[in-house]
Amino acid sequence: MSSRKIVIVGYGNLGQGVHAAIEKNRDMELSGIISRDPDRVRQTLAARQLTVKTVLDANQKIDFSEQLPAEVAILCGGSKSDLTEQGPKFARHYNVVDSFDTHDRIPDYFQQMDKVGKRQKKLALISAGWDPGIFSVERVQAAAFFPESEIYSFWGPGVSQGHSDAVRQIPGVQDARQYTIPLEAALTAIRQGKNPDFEPGEKHFRKVYVVADEKANREEISRQIKTMPDYFEPYQTEVIFITQKELEEEHHEMSHGGTVLCTGKTGAAKINTEYSCNWGSNPGATGSILVAYARAVHRLARRGETGARTVLDICAADISPLSRRELRESFV
Amino acid sequence: MSSRKIVIVGYGNLGQGVHAAIEKNRDMELSGIISRDPDRVRQTLAARQLTVKTVLDANQKIDFSEQLPAEVAILCGGSKSDLTEQGPKFARHYNVVDSFDTHDRIPDYFQQMDKVGKRQKKLALISAGWDPGIFSVERVQAAAFFPESEIYSFWGPGVSQGHSDAVRQIPGVQDARQYTIPLEAALTAIRQGKNPDFEPGEKHFRKVYVVADEKANREEISRQIKTMPDYFEPYQTEVIFITQKELEEEHHEMSHGGTVLCTGKTGAAKINTEYSCNWGSNPGATGSILVAYARAVHRLARRGETGARTVLDICAADISPLSRRELRESFV
Repeated sequence: MSSRKIVIVGYGNLGQGVHAAIEKNRDMELSGIISRDPDRVRQTLAARQLTVKTVLDANQKIDFSEQLPAEVAILCGGSKSDLTEQGPKFARHYNVVDSFDTHDRIPDYFQQMDKVGKRQKKLALISAGWDPGIFSVERVQAAAFFPESEIYSFWGPGVSQGHSDAVRQIPGVQDARQYTIPLEAALTAIRQGKNPDFEPGEKHFRKVYVVADEKANREEISRQIKTMPDYFEPYQTEVIFITQKELEEEHHEMSHGGTVLCTGKTGAAKINTEYSCNWGSNPGATGSILVAYARAVHRLARRGETGARTVLDICAADISPLSRRELRESFV
Repeated sequence: MSSRKIVIVGYGNLGQGVHAAIEKNRDMELSGIISRDPDRVRQTLAARQLTVKTVLDANQKIDFSEQLPAEVAILCGGSKSDLTEQGPKFARHYNVVDSFDTHDRIPDYFQQMDKVGKRQKKLALISAGWDPGIFSVERVQAAAFFPESEIYSFWGPGVSQGHSDAVRQIPGVQDARQYTIPLEAALTAIRQGKNPDFEPGEKHFRKVYVVADEKANREEISRQIKTMPDYFEPYQTEVIFITQKELEEEHHEMSHGGTVLCTGKTGAAKINTEYSCNWGSNPGATGSILVAYARAVHRLARRGETGARTVLDICAADISPLSRRELRESFV
């Protein structure tokens, strides 16, 4: 089996997670990395004693696919600004996979990527990862199997980057880390088949670790956090002040996770299903999932498929390194 | 949207579960039932105030597809004897879905159905349900996302028909019901990331409710159960003698369920995932799953696909009643 060449675009936490996952998959090979900051990448790689062929500047307006040929490019930038720009750009020259996760904008981004892909005869799988991603598949399966069932998604315990950033904007805040944590009472009510309707604040609570300036008014910071509309106001929020050293030592982990629950009935009988995940490293897990979907993208592209896809269009056999025959023999 | 016509072959517990599921799916319509015992079916249906067009004898060697036209036939017979005979027979005239669940024989049965399907230009989805079925998808996904991870499947608490039958063969036993129950210690060890290797008896235990003849030697029955090779000998087994009335009153439910767990690492970080299901009615849940896959079979057949498939070949979008656009808008 010749290996699939992969290009990583963006070498932050997620890009490094993808790199680690490529090393674990024998049918995958890293062709190269594309980064805005090649020096930092070279440094990171040297520390890890890894080699890559080339490091380029992503802002150059060139077709990288000649210097870095690859079956699939995995786009590891953020959804807010990177992917909306990089996605359509890279989909001109590569089959791509990304983890675009701004749920509201997925339909628009899909259209955009579909157009580029069809025109350039490339395949683009958008919004892979765990949510959107695995959770999307679980929600659609549960809803398809059990019409009239209720489906719930919970996130955490884990750090929300967006909420941490929002707290950092408050005057007097040096640094902050925000954890989203499911409320056990909500999970219990669902598991008991009570089919509850939740307000946003009834499913999760928020725990914020804040490093404040020495002279800052802590009460005022706390008030500003707890009353921030949308971000914190609807939620039970706990604010804990710590030192920068404590933040760095105790809150550097990038763990995350979540749960998708379904409750319903078949005839008079109750049914419930539950998928849950705990990621010691969120970028490690997301990177692993992206690499598996890169395999599917390569296979579909070889079959002549072009345009955009989501994980809902991909069957389990296509993400597996095993052949369909092997899967029937040992996994069905 | 014109509805999909479905024929049910076999009207035992599973067939009735499929029937109930068809009623819950607005894009599905029951075209008719094929049964060895049409009188019993008519009786069951009358009691439920349902109508079907035709009931035929499955042993007649005729092509039913003219009298009972349908997009898909759902085969609800057992794997041991019914499906190996009925599968290839019905796949000549219908696209079919079944829940063939003898894991060892799936590759052979697949070949057989693939051959008939390709020759007759029909599509056959075999081994749908929850295991094989949902659990197969969960196992393949987890293994693809996390190479070198450990994957475990647990079944129960739920009744095993095969084990109940085996106990009924013992002299002096009038009736019996056997529950397979996961050992909590095993689940805990996995969740703690200990990656244990289990002997068969370390994952589940067995609880047997027995109705014995008045004059039977209960100790001898108990001994025979507990020493039965493969079925009970490797397991912790509890035998409880009850009356026929108790058995009928307290053990008539057909509940079942199970869990698929995956534990592994990405880099140095631990990951684990868990899918679990609780079915108040095993045939109700299985029937619901078969109906969702019948939708996929119809769609794939319309695209010109023929031969055999398993659930691993089916993407989530194809089992959903919603369009891909609707799914992207509200489920990704």
